[in-house]
Amino acid sequence: MSAPWPPSGRIELPDTDEPYWAPEETMDPEQRRGVVFDKLREQVRYCWERSPFYRELWSDAGVFPETLRTLDDLRHFPFVKKEQIRADQVAHPPFGSNICCPPEAIAHIHGTSGTTGRPTAFAISRDDWLRIAAAHARIMWSFGIRRTDTVFIGSFFSLYLGSWGALIGTEALGARAFPFGAGVPGQTERALEYIDLIRPTAFYGTPSYALHLAKVAAKRGVDPKDFGFKIMFFSGEPGAGIPATKKRIEDTFGAICIDSGSMAEMTPWMTNSECSHRSGMHLWEDLVYTEIVDRETGEPVEGDGEGVPVYTHLERTSQPMIRLYSGDLTHATSDPCPCGRTYRRLPDGIYGRVDDMLIIRGVNVYPNAVENALASVPGVGSEYRIVIERPGELDVFRLEVESTEPSVADAVRDRVKSAAGVGPDVVVHPPDTLETTEFKSRRVDDRRNTAASTPSH
Amino acid sequence: MSAPWPPSGRIELPDTDEPYWAPEETMDPEQRRGVVFDKLREQVRYCWERSPFYRELWSDAGVFPETLRTLDDLRHFPFVKKEQIRADQVAHPPFGSNICCPPEAIAHIHGTSGTTGRPTAFAISRDDWLRIAAAHARIMWSFGIRRTDTVFIGSFFSLYLGSWGALIGTEALGARAFPFGAGVPGQTERALEYIDLIRPTAFYGTPSYALHLAKVAAKRGVDPKDFGFKIMFFSGEPGAGIPATKKRIEDTFGAICIDSGSMAEMTPWMTNSECSHRSGMHLWEDLVYTEIVDRETGEPVEGDGEGVPVYTHLERTSQPMIRLYSGDLTHATSDPCPCGRTYRRLPDGIYGRVDDMLIIRGVNVYPNAVENALASVPGVGSEYRIVIERPGELDVFRLEVESTEPSVADAVRDRVKSAAGVGPDVVVHPPDTLETTEFKSRRVDDRRNTAASTPSH
Repeated sequence: MSAPWPPSGRIELPDTDEPYWAPEETMDPEQRRGVVFDKLREQVRYCWERSPFYRELWSDAGVFPETLRTLDDLRHFPFVKKEQIRADQVAHPPFGSNICCPPEAIAHIHGTSGTTGRPTAFAISRDDWLRIAAAHARIMWSFGIRRTDTVFIGSFFSLYLGSWGALIGTEALGARAFPFGAGVPGQTERALEYIDLIRPTAFYGTPSYALHLAKVAAKRGVDPKDFGFKIMFFSGEPGAGIPATKKRIEDTFGAICIDSGSMAEMTPWMTNSECSHRSGMHLWEDLVYTEIVDRETGEPVEGDGEGVPVYTHLERTSQPMIRLYSGDLTHATSDPCPCGRTYRRLPDGIYGRVDDMLIIRGVNVYPNAVENALASVPGVGSEYRIVIERPGELDVFRLEVESTEPSVADAVRDRVKSAAGVGPDVVVHPPDTLETTEFKSRRVDDRRNTAASTPSH
Repeated sequence: MSAPWPPSGRIELPDTDEPYWAPEETMDPEQRRGVVFDKLREQVRYCWERSPFYRELWSDAGVFPETLRTLDDLRHFPFVKKEQIRADQVAHPPFGSNICCPPEAIAHIHGTSGTTGRPTAFAISRDDWLRIAAAHARIMWSFGIRRTDTVFIGSFFSLYLGSWGALIGTEALGARAFPFGAGVPGQTERALEYIDLIRPTAFYGTPSYALHLAKVAAKRGVDPKDFGFKIMFFSGEPGAGIPATKKRIEDTFGAICIDSGSMAEMTPWMTNSECSHRSGMHLWEDLVYTEIVDRETGEPVEGDGEGVPVYTHLERTSQPMIRLYSGDLTHATSDPCPCGRTYRRLPDGIYGRVDDMLIIRGVNVYPNAVENALASVPGVGSEYRIVIERPGELDVFRLEVESTEPSVADAVRDRVKSAAGVGPDVVVHPPDTLETTEFKSRRVDDRRNTAASTPSH
């Protein structure tokens, strides 16, 4: 006997001292697979009935709701890739043929930034909005947010779903939301004044922006530890899951640094999230079911092998995603977490993308590995640029960093070579020379013939 | 027998064809004063019991909850001015001694921009947030927003309460919110793409921003009439209530232009708002009670005389305002509105401020009167600057405008002289020369000794 589907999104807050929000969190994994399967079956049937997109995709692949007899059968369903969603939205503007709910059920419209081509538009139903809020509240609970917290949201409120998820999760949990936003000239200075005035206990934003805030504070003689943040949670960039960047953030602010986030299409996007123990993002699989698939074969990876997360909604009624192929790279472990949750974890976070791996002089290099190595060298700033050129036959790998000490170059070169397998030419700039962004930084500049730097598969 | 106080904020949506949301809207004014009085009595008692700020202010003035035996007795209560709120917050950081609710009841933290001195911090309780949403939904209903509408919110989401009120009103009404935001470089171009894609039917923002959006559209060869907006509602600037600016917006977009807004402290701020007939903002007095007081005597103005709106909350439990002195200038009429609502109206909107009246060569000049005159001259752009200098004995009044036709200068001078009583030296710049802002424009530059330009009282 399974619970009603979709769940209501209604919230019953646990007692403050209660570490868990829902019984699924500590359930025997095999038993929880039963819970997941019950939800998945309903979700798949819903998609089949409501979504011309899935009817066509699945019919072409020869799969049907009845194909799903066990959770393992999900592997028979085709991946959904971002390009397909975009193409479907072009053919069926604006929300595609996978909208699944009537227009009057839509509560919020968001989308991708559209900086690279046609944007993807997201329409989220009223009920989904409540369920997303409930899911985020539950996950925020796991990293320690309580009703007594004030959550400073230091990211831009517009199309970007990160800010909104953090906001509605905060509201649903009954904590105080301080939706400050970001991105407007001069706003960081004002943020510092307001943080001093309001004393928020938690921060949400991108790692880049947190470090930018710290830098601006330092210039004004303010120690970011004095902000009083206890919990800082992040998405939008991998930094918070990169050990050295995590350590830098924790040392700078005296707060715990929580990595979270999957994809905008998958909202609730916090269903990859660390708990307060920060031992890697848990996969909150009864909210969003996540497979890790082999990058070559596409088959689910056994054990803790590297692969690509593939996400499946279990309780979305608007634009549900069944097997959305993320293109990210990670590996998962079932080793216990001290928190007691039985979810698998991503002990090294999302550490790369299938399509952002650089091949430098024949070696596979992930920018995040370079960032991690770099952050472990004392006296080196958090901003950097990777520049790759091929003036003749050989790749030239240049790493531009910031430091007051030009002599750090050797240490940087050694650490990066040891971590990434290729040693860069290191250029040391004075602090604050490299351009910073207040949002997602773009740090790789590959100037070679692009064909040569594309992964071979 | 009066209704329970505070009201729940729970919403029961009228049928789509129903013009009114609540019986108070068309009630006999005398009967409605009874409704207002019942709410006011509870609100005043609540403040007395919970707010050290009001206990002290009122005790010093010799008034008490018992002083309020009729609605007219409200005149015995002292005004609250912004400086007092700021000073109280400095003494009792961060929210002042008028917070009235426990910290765990606070849902949202906002504030003033703080560009001029210490900001004022707003803490809004969870229940108030619901009531604010319900009030805004009800008022948005009066100017025609229905569940089938998609509301593009083109203002910055941060401290500014305007964006949030429009958002939660939209959500509460069950329409589709498209919270696009504004203020980040390049965002207006993206807004145009998204408007074309999503086809929102309603727009919220500042008049400046709407006209900026139209200008950017025109540069791309897009006619703003093709956006498909049917209803555009505004706050944050007086423009939408200035007849010529309203006409310019309506002609440019082919949509109705709705003026609304009181003050951030008074949220729900839409309680001054036009209905779909645009015959001046109604004072939705059973949501926020508004007196118009004489600028000299401070006594309530009888009839339609000019005065300063003084606002009183009737259902706020966090930071309630009792007789907040706005410093704005307006006049009200009880003449019937075709909509059938029996609220008084501000037929000329908020057309000035007690402290922004300019005295030029001894004549009282309101910048809005200049704007109105200016907008009635064909071929003149919407951006302008008023510059006042006193190089010798006499004031020099310069008005900088934009046009392709230098010859408009004479017409501009004549119209402004006729409307404002003083003729400016007109400088005509080519289009797009004057700096535009995407938010509230600053258009008066008074370079004289400031003492001389301050109103005498």
